Amino acid sequence: MNLNVIMTKSFDETDALRSMPVMNIAVAILGATGYTGAELIRLIESHPHFEVKHLAAHSQAGKLAGDVLPGCAGKVAAMRLATADDALPENVELVFTALPHGAAATSVFAALEAGKKVVDLSADFRHKSHDIYQAAYGASHPHPELFEEAVYGLTEFARADVAKARLIANPGCYPTSTLLPLVPLLNAELIDTSTIIVDSKSGTSGAGRSAKTDLLYCEINESVKAYGLPRHRHAWEMEEWALGFGHQSITVRFVPHILPMNRGMLTTLHLNGASTHSWHEILTDQFADEPFVKVLPEGRLPSTAGISGSNRCDIGVAALSDSEAVIVSCIDNLLKGAAGQALQNANLMFGFDETAGLATHALWP
Amino acid sequence: MNLNVIMTKSFDETDALRSMPVMNIAVAILGATGYTGAELIRLIESHPHFEVKHLAAHSQAGKLAGDVLPGCAGKVAAMRLATADDALPENVELVFTALPHGAAATSVFAALEAGKKVVDLSADFRHKSHDIYQAAYGASHPHPELFEEAVYGLTEFARADVAKARLIANPGCYPTSTLLPLVPLLNAELIDTSTIIVDSKSGTSGAGRSAKTDLLYCEINESVKAYGLPRHRHAWEMEEWALGFGHQSITVRFVPHILPMNRGMLTTLHLNGASTHSWHEILTDQFADEPFVKVLPEGRLPSTAGISGSNRCDIGVAALSDSEAVIVSCIDNLLKGAAGQALQNANLMFGFDETAGLATHALWP
Amino acid sequence: MNLNVIMTKSFDETDALRSMPVMNIAVAILGATGYTGAELIRLIESHPHFEVKHLAAHSQAGKLAGDVLPGCAGKVAAMRLATADDALPENVELVFTALPHGAAATSVFAALEAGKKVVDLSADFRHKSHDIYQAAYGASHPHPELFEEAVYGLTEFARADVAKARLIANPGCYPTSTLLPLVPLLNAELIDTSTIIVDSKSGTSGAGRSAKTDLLYCEINESVKAYGLPRHRHAWEMEEWALGFGHQSITVRFVPHILPMNRGMLTTLHLNGASTHSWHEILTDQFADEPFVKVLPEGRLPSTAGISGSNRCDIGVAALSDSEAVIVSCIDNLLKGAAGQALQNANLMFGFDETAGLATHALWP
Amino acid sequence: MNLNVIMTKSFDETDALRSMPVMNIAVAILGATGYTGAELIRLIESHPHFEVKHLAAHSQAGKLAGDVLPGCAGKVAAMRLATADDALPENVELVFTALPHGAAATSVFAALEAGKKVVDLSADFRHKSHDIYQAAYGASHPHPELFEEAVYGLTEFARADVAKARLIANPGCYPTSTLLPLVPLLNAELIDTSTIIVDSKSGTSGAGRSAKTDLLYCEINESVKAYGLPRHRHAWEMEEWALGFGHQSITVRFVPHILPMNRGMLTTLHLNGASTHSWHEILTDQFADEPFVKVLPEGRLPSTAGISGSNRCDIGVAALSDSEAVIVSCIDNLLKGAAGQALQNANLMFGFDETAGLATHALWP
Repeated sequence: MNLNVIMTKSFDETDALRSMPVMNIAVAILGATGYTGAELIRLIESHPHFEVKHLAAHSQAGKLAGDVLPGCAGKVAAMRLATADDALPENVELVFTALPHGAAATSVFAALEAGKKVVDLSADFRHKSHDIYQAAYGASHPHPELFEEAVYGLTEFARADVAKARLIANPGCYPTSTLLPLVPLLNAELIDTSTIIVDSKSGTSGAGRSAKTDLLYCEINESVKAYGLPRHRHAWEMEEWALGFGHQSITVRFVPHILPMNRGMLTTLHLNGASTHSWHEILTDQFADEPFVKVLPEGRLPSTAGISGSNRCDIGVAALSDSEAVIVSCIDNLLKGAAGQALQNANLMFGFDETAGLATHALWP
Repeated sequence: MNLNVIMTKSFDETDALRSMPVMNIAVAILGATGYTGAELIRLIESHPHFEVKHLAAHSQAGKLAGDVLPGCAGKVAAMRLATADDALPENVELVFTALPHGAAATSVFAALEAGKKVVDLSADFRHKSHDIYQAAYGASHPHPELFEEAVYGLTEFARADVAKARLIANPGCYPTSTLLPLVPLLNAELIDTSTIIVDSKSGTSGAGRSAKTDLLYCEINESVKAYGLPRHRHAWEMEEWALGFGHQSITVRFVPHILPMNRGMLTTLHLNGASTHSWHEILTDQFADEPFVKVLPEGRLPSTAGISGSNRCDIGVAALSDSEAVIVSCIDNLLKGAAGQALQNANLMFGFDETAGLATHALWP
Repeated sequence: MNLNVIMTKSFDETDALRSMPVMNIAVAILGATGYTGAELIRLIESHPHFEVKHLAAHSQAGKLAGDVLPGCAGKVAAMRLATADDALPENVELVFTALPHGAAATSVFAALEAGKKVVDLSADFRHKSHDIYQAAYGASHPHPELFEEAVYGLTEFARADVAKARLIANPGCYPTSTLLPLVPLLNAELIDTSTIIVDSKSGTSGAGRSAKTDLLYCEINESVKAYGLPRHRHAWEMEEWALGFGHQSITVRFVPHILPMNRGMLTTLHLNGASTHSWHEILTDQFADEPFVKVLPEGRLPSTAGISGSNRCDIGVAALSDSEAVIVSCIDNLLKGAAGQALQNANLMFGFDETAGLATHALWP
Repeated sequence: MNLNVIMTKSFDETDALRSMPVMNIAVAILGATGYTGAELIRLIESHPHFEVKHLAAHSQAGKLAGDVLPGCAGKVAAMRLATADDALPENVELVFTALPHGAAATSVFAALEAGKKVVDLSADFRHKSHDIYQAAYGASHPHPELFEEAVYGLTEFARADVAKARLIANPGCYPTSTLLPLVPLLNAELIDTSTIIVDSKSGTSGAGRSAKTDLLYCEINESVKAYGLPRHRHAWEMEEWALGFGHQSITVRFVPHILPMNRGMLTTLHLNGASTHSWHEILTDQFADEPFVKVLPEGRLPSTAGISGSNRCDIGVAALSDSEAVIVSCIDNLLKGAAGQALQNANLMFGFDETAGLATHALWP
């Protein structure tokens, strides 16, 4: 049906194509009926080399995907949902787990045992220390033995490891929007690491699809609120990978807010440091060749409308003085903040072009 | 950059690919900075065989596309905007005109004279009679000599003509959502043609990107209103093509409404007729093999969330009695209602797969 | 605390005041924590002669009102919620029941037995026939003996009866927006009663505050859908009171839609009849002295923004031909469609000015 | 018509009433057709002692108020709009100026010359130094001689001066939401004044009603962005009145954001200091008797839904450590942030109850 592949944009690419073996990778999605699961289905279905073969969703098991996911159409809509505990089909090579933390680890373990590669979109493998996991998530972890192997997939800083990985810990949305602009400046040793204030604003899809009163349309619409104080779980994740990629120990003061919009996340970093007037250039240089990171011209600030529906992170930098700066970054929380980055990582794991199946243009408006 | 084409989904498709010539069609978009123009850019940029070569936009001429369109990235963002009067590059083979009615006709004429194919998204070539054009648009038409040649591109009913066309009159959003479910029932001679009531609800992007007070965020948000009475221009278009495709003369009573959402259009048809309990099956059969029309199971009604971001039209049918029925149809007004159907037509005009570059899954939520 | 009363607008009014006895009516609200209950609290708290003395809410019983209702402040916020079954305080004279149908009837009965006056915002006393109640609500009614006494409180057409009533059946939102413009034209015998099409669009607060997946923010936002086919319960109510007030037997074809906004309801009436060009004048005359009905100038159509937060119904009339017309009416579903009309009725029941405590200006934007 | 005053809540109040003279204050509103002007009309129209006598609006002069303001009804809707330059009626005693800065000063001067009292909602009289005004607004001020007399009307900290004032400089929305929680802690000398980070989120009505492309519905909806960097004008105002009321010289780092909602403003203060665990109690004590400030229980954070439509400021306090805290405050930018506080001040200026005509309960949802 999808003949996107009949012709191509240059002779070179087509020549490459003609000499390559043809293959499709069968994919399973566990937790298929949440908002992230729905995005994974959409992305995989229009991907040139992956194909959805198995969908699981505990509470909706037994139903057709199309009956639970209104945006779904075609072959996938007619697939029957399994439970997350059902055995994975043998021909599945890649599993995406979009399950609650805690539950994910068990499914990840089983999938690896069955010889699959896994991209885990939960928080279960984002930490290297069991103590920190417990501090952040308030529970013991069933498979800490996998911590060492898991690769934290903030793609732009972890390509080589991602390409070789069997298990990807896909980053959280808040850490992704925070770390992308922060890491290069940490590596440049220009940030005062004692006062990093992260004020984030997220669309409501980040809160998931549970039937809770405080997520009802009329409670969210025409309103904004802060939540997660005194310390949101993602603060630990930011600090761990600021050290991991930026090689500096930092303390973040992180306040997330929920906004009346479906998607989109904007993070405002209030920073102190040195040579702030050089920061725009440092970030511009760092990301010059990145397909999914766009540093705006100096003095321009991004909006989430500019990246919604794309896998991009847009970054704006404003020096307030020599020692003070504000950085604003925007991602689509369901794409670069979840399903999009998961696919970006999966592309690398299977040797495909990193951008395959991912949009750089936003769906605007 | 886009290596979507390295591998493919089946041996057959790849074999076909290997034996086909490689080509890219250069495309111009006139009226590039409106909401429809922005969608055309996004779609063309991720299309396997079309490529944006020329962008024009009168009021913004001279600026970079990326400075006017926040969702834009990459090479296209760096393109400088021409005026709609500037000569088209010679290598451009296809022109999309997303201009106001009246202005479009002049650009269409010039593009055809220069040997290009044209998909016109304005209303200028949707009518076959100058009298009706004048009645609907209140102005004389500069090029009525092109009326006969123009093909009204409601793709599902006009494929053969579209494939051979030099000039496509791309249908309006309201007529598209109305005619898709109506035409098969008209052909079945089951509708009472004297009382067809069309009550449509549209997202605000359909009203365009002009700086008008009544389109400000705070005037539209948290509100709904009817407009366009006593007779909206699209009523003539519905009637003309109900006759053209459905072979029956009808009178529509059409009331459009504007809603607080960016995209999406829902049309509620209040119908009288015969054998209404057979209508669901008639529509299901008619559209069984259509990639972009989905008739929902009997008793299920569509929402615009289910099709937003896709090129689909979803249709629900409810028989109220043997002689009364309600049909609800949903499209994304910027896609199946504008840029998506335009690309669907362009695919056919150049012999590509009709679905190339078009999404069947919605961006949900 | 509220000294709104120190001075007044004219000597006459003040003179009246000086000679009148001082009294405050103690009020109970059952079902206080839904959206309608919250509005009742807000209205009563700023009312000059009513005072909230008792709040009940089954699922939240035992909590403080302010912990469940974020908009609440002051004395009321500190009130502890009783259950709907708890005995009513003796000094309470007026009870508002904002409970689900079925449950409401039992509480209404108990309140009447205890000697209170009642305004019931459920559907339990809107019908005069047990058969019709059963057809519409699919259940047997526990207290049909109260049907005859109950006064259907569409205030503008029922003032005299409301003033004497012990029990008000407060009208539904859809019937209110439909009947206000329809009744005068039915009485004028100008409407073709065989084809009355009612296409309504409602804000989401009308669906209540239950924790259901399909009412989540991300499912409603940026989407519109029809529901309630083949026959919504309010169709029976419209027909019963079109006969009751308009003295004609009609059949409505009613299709409600849910919209991405908190409040507001717009009803589009597609009508056939006679002398449609006289309809605007008939409605203008009918409502000339009504404080809460505004007929817009001919050719002007209302928006819900114009009435949101007020107790008004705005009406626009467009004659399409001598025999066809479209009428559009707008109300705030929580005010004129629920709590506002309830208070308007209560004002009459206790001999207060009908407009006391009710806004005519909308909260715009 | 409005008989809100016939009875009252206690004998004492009524006794007071009976012995007081009756009067209505005639009011003019200049800049009546913006969003703030519309709110002033609504508030004045339901106020017990003020009455709208004159409306002016340059660009719409000559039209009826009801034709420009959809929420308007009744007598005011039929008033014809004057220009801001037209002479004020003699009987007008109070003028609200809701004009752009610069333009406001001229109208204020004229009104004072004509013997009226003035509440100016522009920025023109919020500063005491011409240098600071020029730094913030980039223009010379036509009437700096009025700086000394003008009273900055942050009501809770300026009651005595407001009551005696002839000219009120009504505070900006961002400073109001920032200063209310900040001033008591500055006076307690518990805040590290060198790093006060103010991250504010505002509904779009704060940007006004001009027909600008970047305020169109489709550009704002489903998006969030920061703006106003490197230094927004309100930063000067915050600093000046932190010193004025809090008696400490501070530097704020202020980043405002615009959100997809009509009204509401949430300000997140990221603070360092001493004894942060005492801050909640300090603020609770400070505002215990304030009708329009509500400090939430410790650990609870406010949402703008909780205050929308009311004149309240809700405050939440979270101590992160002994020396770090986050404070979140919410106001309705059009009420406590503009028209509501203006009326609160006007009440004091004329000796009325400060709460007259102002809501403490939010319009929720």
